[in-house]
Amino acid sequence: MNSFGRNFRVSVFGESHGEAIGVVVDGVKAGIPICEEDFLEDISRRKSGSKGTTPRIEADEPEILSGVFEGHTTGAPIAIIFRNTNTRSSDYEALKDIPRPGHADYTASVKWNGFNDPRGGGHFSGRLTLPLVAAGVIAKKQSGFSFKADLVEVGGEADKDKWPAMLKETAREGDSLGGVVECQVEGVPAGLGEPFFDSVESLISHAVFSIPGVRGVEFGDGFAASRMKGSEHNDCFPLTRNGAGGVNGGITNGAPIVFRVAFKPTSSIAKTQRTLNIKTGEVADLQIRGRHDTCFALRTPVIVEAVAAIVLAGLR
Amino acid sequence: MNSFGRNFRVSVFGESHGEAIGVVVDGVKAGIPICEEDFLEDISRRKSGSKGTTPRIEADEPEILSGVFEGHTTGAPIAIIFRNTNTRSSDYEALKDIPRPGHADYTASVKWNGFNDPRGGGHFSGRLTLPLVAAGVIAKKQSGFSFKADLVEVGGEADKDKWPAMLKETAREGDSLGGVVECQVEGVPAGLGEPFFDSVESLISHAVFSIPGVRGVEFGDGFAASRMKGSEHNDCFPLTRNGAGGVNGGITNGAPIVFRVAFKPTSSIAKTQRTLNIKTGEVADLQIRGRHDTCFALRTPVIVEAVAAIVLAGLR
Amino acid sequence: MNSFGRNFRVSVFGESHGEAIGVVVDGVKAGIPICEEDFLEDISRRKSGSKGTTPRIEADEPEILSGVFEGHTTGAPIAIIFRNTNTRSSDYEALKDIPRPGHADYTASVKWNGFNDPRGGGHFSGRLTLPLVAAGVIAKKQSGFSFKADLVEVGGEADKDKWPAMLKETAREGDSLGGVVECQVEGVPAGLGEPFFDSVESLISHAVFSIPGVRGVEFGDGFAASRMKGSEHNDCFPLTRNGAGGVNGGITNGAPIVFRVAFKPTSSIAKTQRTLNIKTGEVADLQIRGRHDTCFALRTPVIVEAVAAIVLAGLR
Amino acid sequence: MNSFGRNFRVSVFGESHGEAIGVVVDGVKAGIPICEEDFLEDISRRKSGSKGTTPRIEADEPEILSGVFEGHTTGAPIAIIFRNTNTRSSDYEALKDIPRPGHADYTASVKWNGFNDPRGGGHFSGRLTLPLVAAGVIAKKQSGFSFKADLVEVGGEADKDKWPAMLKETAREGDSLGGVVECQVEGVPAGLGEPFFDSVESLISHAVFSIPGVRGVEFGDGFAASRMKGSEHNDCFPLTRNGAGGVNGGITNGAPIVFRVAFKPTSSIAKTQRTLNIKTGEVADLQIRGRHDTCFALRTPVIVEAVAAIVLAGLR
Repeated sequence: MNSFGRNFRVSVFGESHGEAIGVVVDGVKAGIPICEEDFLEDISRRKSGSKGTTPRIEADEPEILSGVFEGHTTGAPIAIIFRNTNTRSSDYEALKDIPRPGHADYTASVKWNGFNDPRGGGHFSGRLTLPLVAAGVIAKKQSGFSFKADLVEVGGEADKDKWPAMLKETAREGDSLGGVVECQVEGVPAGLGEPFFDSVESLISHAVFSIPGVRGVEFGDGFAASRMKGSEHNDCFPLTRNGAGGVNGGITNGAPIVFRVAFKPTSSIAKTQRTLNIKTGEVADLQIRGRHDTCFALRTPVIVEAVAAIVLAGLR
Repeated sequence: MNSFGRNFRVSVFGESHGEAIGVVVDGVKAGIPICEEDFLEDISRRKSGSKGTTPRIEADEPEILSGVFEGHTTGAPIAIIFRNTNTRSSDYEALKDIPRPGHADYTASVKWNGFNDPRGGGHFSGRLTLPLVAAGVIAKKQSGFSFKADLVEVGGEADKDKWPAMLKETAREGDSLGGVVECQVEGVPAGLGEPFFDSVESLISHAVFSIPGVRGVEFGDGFAASRMKGSEHNDCFPLTRNGAGGVNGGITNGAPIVFRVAFKPTSSIAKTQRTLNIKTGEVADLQIRGRHDTCFALRTPVIVEAVAAIVLAGLR
Repeated sequence: MNSFGRNFRVSVFGESHGEAIGVVVDGVKAGIPICEEDFLEDISRRKSGSKGTTPRIEADEPEILSGVFEGHTTGAPIAIIFRNTNTRSSDYEALKDIPRPGHADYTASVKWNGFNDPRGGGHFSGRLTLPLVAAGVIAKKQSGFSFKADLVEVGGEADKDKWPAMLKETAREGDSLGGVVECQVEGVPAGLGEPFFDSVESLISHAVFSIPGVRGVEFGDGFAASRMKGSEHNDCFPLTRNGAGGVNGGITNGAPIVFRVAFKPTSSIAKTQRTLNIKTGEVADLQIRGRHDTCFALRTPVIVEAVAAIVLAGLR
Repeated sequence: MNSFGRNFRVSVFGESHGEAIGVVVDGVKAGIPICEEDFLEDISRRKSGSKGTTPRIEADEPEILSGVFEGHTTGAPIAIIFRNTNTRSSDYEALKDIPRPGHADYTASVKWNGFNDPRGGGHFSGRLTLPLVAAGVIAKKQSGFSFKADLVEVGGEADKDKWPAMLKETAREGDSLGGVVECQVEGVPAGLGEPFFDSVESLISHAVFSIPGVRGVEFGDGFAASRMKGSEHNDCFPLTRNGAGGVNGGITNGAPIVFRVAFKPTSSIAKTQRTLNIKTGEVADLQIRGRHDTCFALRTPVIVEAVAAIVLAGLR
């Protein structure tokens, strides 16, 4: 199902090339000041336009349909929609029977017996992260915590100075790059989360893996913890390191929550790829045209913040 | 909350040193042949006793209270309990105000205002994975898929021949080791899972992070994907590699589901650690006595299989 | 929370005098033929305009934002909105501190600390049943069952010939009437529903009590069953009567599901009523102006059908 | 599914003639004083033994397996079981293919393909209300409200003096009686509940219809409201009557919550009834032997209190 959360619930809808995409946010406290301008910064951080991102430009103007009255949340569900305007369906028509490697074209078609909207990935499009970001803005306000996510690696490289050249070179090759985002949440009190099955890590990873293109999630020392001794990894009290990423036994310990998210390289690449025509069964060459990010991970830090905020806004 | 799943729902309860631990499994199909012997193999795989595991031996005999009649599931919820017998509460009494590093002692106490059962970690104990394994046995039968998890690294070492010496040496030092488990699920048809927010990765990671001591989860190429080019990471059709781990857009693609789980080193170590007396506020030296695993990750492959099965038994 | 259903989930949003009201319907099967015209009949049955209903006329045109492609459901969530156009906010401004008897003005204000949208009842308005009806149209298609609800009593009178005079006389008095709706669902196979706690009656009553103004729900013989002997009330096999309303032990038995819903008289009446100014604490006389139904129960049969369909579309 | 509640969640399991029946109660606040004696009064109110109830006597001793430590709730889930001891399976063996009118024998068999436990109604037995009552004891403590349910009618008769003779006469005829229970909840603050779909009436009716044998639920003036004028039914402020049953727009208004529940007459009667042999398809005469309540509604007030408490313990 396309909703998440018990006490702060987010339901997303829409397709890349449909009428509109949007989100319903339920469980919002009454009295939070909010207006359409509040969404602009986070929406702009997700936007394309910079080097390494797709030149498809959408207005991305949030239209608040409900739940806000005289500049404050009312307590009723907040529905926000974004009209799709800059859609070129013809880009995708030809691909209907030819699933793009790395995309959900094939699985969506199987799941929904071919009735899925194939245009631009339909409901599976990365464009659906826009309503997530909008929900995140509300969630951040409700939680009161401080969320800060950054891209810390592109193509395995941590030195940001080298990224522009890598992106340029990769784009020239018709290829793409992945990246790693690190997110820190500060101001979280100790005691949030549930032991089974709603540990903070369970909930955050659940939400994070909703973001298209995520391949891994780790908390604190993460995979490196598996290579440490207990005496190295344990956070002694009072805390001076944070190998647990702010969570013990699924419950926050008062230290910042720290986690990292691995994003795959953009699936749509200009390079010719092998694929299968699912109608004829013939192997075919695929050349993906259109406007694509060389490294969509560049746009994801604000999305990671958003889903973390959506989780934490619902905890008590 | 301590339950998981929409159509196949598992609710765990119990404490390490309480009367009994157990699980209620709801949404089980009627007519699945089942008896208490069916649980023995998986329970035994989780058991301690081998090198590197705690010598606390429990009978771990499942008692099926409901939902089974004349050797078959009835469709009604199945409750299974395990009596706790080998409990030495005195081991833990002294530690009440002195949270053990890496454990949930502190966070549980904050969350539950000091009313948590502190004996052996109480509800947060790794012992609670026993009912998970029992639920997993039912889930495996219901799903009909094949689950196979293995420990692929101990302390960062992939060569199993070296593990015995590492474990011995680490135990001698009063320290502990972590590990990485890889799980493969075969026989899964294409089309299971939901785009937002119930992607297969979301659900599996949610369930996996319920296992105490997990620090990271990755699917297919995982974190390595973030360092690959799109042309390397994409799985072309027909599939010859499985970099996506069997899931595209959150939906299974018919290839085996493959994921890896990073386990931290055992938190309880014999080595002296620094901690805080939360009553007096004084920094104290802590010497943990008792029976502990040098590397509890040795016991986790069957638990990882169980939670994956719990997820997949509920998908359609 | 403003959503309902496990496998067929409906989330409503909006306020009487806000931008738009709407609904997100999730869990819809792919491939159901659907277009905007399909909604017109049910929407028109809910509409005001006939004797005894409010003269506020809204276009009530459904705008499908997502989940439909080339005339069929895609499997993705369907979002439908209705713009509010005919809103006279000034009608309600004066009433902000003066809760109307029988309405949610007071309780909404307490729950949401005065931040609720008070215009026309805001989120609590009967207008929110419009998206329910829209969701019901989809639910009816998905279930494949036949839903037929009728108003069987107005003001305690079962003879429909007498209603026009009663409505006229009551309107003249500045007063209002209630009614009883009976709903039958045919074509339901035996075996749907769950014993605890998702009995068919539990789910239907849950959904029905979401309709503003419901005071009671009964199945089959209903309250009359409490005055019958077992030998009278029991439905012997093969079924020749249907005192159970089509449900035994919470599970459908293959007979039509039959239930009745009691609606209160319209709360907004022209007659002067006593109320309290919640700011000043003074008792005040209240004269409600505006456009109101003499008997809103006249408009509810299609709403009752809708919520029953929403429940049954999600059962297996 | 056999669980109920978002923040206070109750999961029941067990069969009439199985090993044990029980309940897991999750979302319980830490620090509530509780011991096994606390359950005795409510359990005894549900017990049979008085005139008009079955002579099957069970010990009904609650065994608390988890979630309680040193006399207080810990915050972890509380599991309580009751062993079944006084079971005479042979009473029911003969009836396997002959569904009893009014029972779930037929529907359970259809739903679960004949794998249901048929002994004494199996999971559908009224005996399952015992764990509900136990959960209710915890829920009452957590909510802090005062619950008082009474049987106000037996066989349509409100004069309690006449009940003993009616029960005696009906038992002599081999027949059974129904009844109506009224429940009042005092001490509830204004502002609890949700507009759509978790109105207080929605949640209470959902829970109430889980009790076997319920045919109707009404709040405040209930069905009578449908026969009143608005000027009669509306509760003017300050409240002097309570026609709304303490709820406006789904949200509590601070007045006592008042609702009534209609119970059918006991389905098991000594009188010969017509039924169908579902194997042979032949119509058969059925004579139900065994120990049954003449009027099981006599035992239900405490169950009604329990489910109301389960609902209200979870609201905020």
